[in-house]
Amino acid sequence: MSNSPEIHDIEEGLALRPKFDASGLVTCVATDAVTGEVLMVAHMNDEALRRTISSGQAWYFSRSRQALWRKGESSGNIQRVVEMRLDCDQDAIWIRVEQTGAACHTGRRSCFYRAVAPAEDGAQLRFVDAERLFDPKAVYGE
Amino acid sequence: MSNSPEIHDIEEGLALRPKFDASGLVTCVATDAVTGEVLMVAHMNDEALRRTISSGQAWYFSRSRQALWRKGESSGNIQRVVEMRLDCDQDAIWIRVEQTGAACHTGRRSCFYRAVAPAEDGAQLRFVDAERLFDPKAVYGE
Repeated sequence: MSNSPEIHDIEEGLALRPKFDASGLVTCVATDAVTGEVLMVAHMNDEALRRTISSGQAWYFSRSRQALWRKGESSGNIQRVVEMRLDCDQDAIWIRVEQTGAACHTGRRSCFYRAVAPAEDGAQLRFVDAERLFDPKAVYGE
Repeated sequence: MSNSPEIHDIEEGLALRPKFDASGLVTCVATDAVTGEVLMVAHMNDEALRRTISSGQAWYFSRSRQALWRKGESSGNIQRVVEMRLDCDQDAIWIRVEQTGAACHTGRRSCFYRAVAPAEDGAQLRFVDAERLFDPKAVYGE
């Protein structure tokens, strides 16, 4: 709720005041600017956010590698940012991108290539887009 | 990379094996099933995920309140899940929803009502959708 001047400023103001978590990260959702498909969910630290804004290309922070990375620096599959939005409490970012090639490290266009289908024991997955646009072994090595 | 049997199973298998973080949560992105707009980014714990799958309505776990909540339980603005997808490493969920009313607690359709615009000192925000579909004070109280 907008029940303090501080929260009101964050929710209704025009100042970019990203709320980084305890690890210094905000969640970032990248969608295809044309189709609206969610391509990936990743994280940005302050430096990745600054570089994304200044360069117009998506930069992220890898939690597993603890390193800044420019999307596509290994694979060539860069993301050109068409629009960047912040959510109400400024702890999540949405970028609409022009995706070169595939967003997913498995070679698929989107990381969200499986849907959840109800099953007798709860749920299971089914592929909605199994096609690989590149061979991950050829791009990243074994 | 798919360089271990364990990772291969998670990335290429049909078993739902969500990778909850240290707080027991996965990130969930909700998009409008019709327009593709990102409505909100929130979190689910195991119970919220189970209830979402079994009920077909979105349930989340509030980090600030440390409580399970059914989206719309206070506001009436429920989310009917049209499709649920998991990402490659199963630590993020994407749900396409039919959103009743507005997704954002500020009364706006989407939480992402401001875009980032380059400015002299880095960046600032501009409203892209300021319209409130409900009065948050009337719905949630002061």
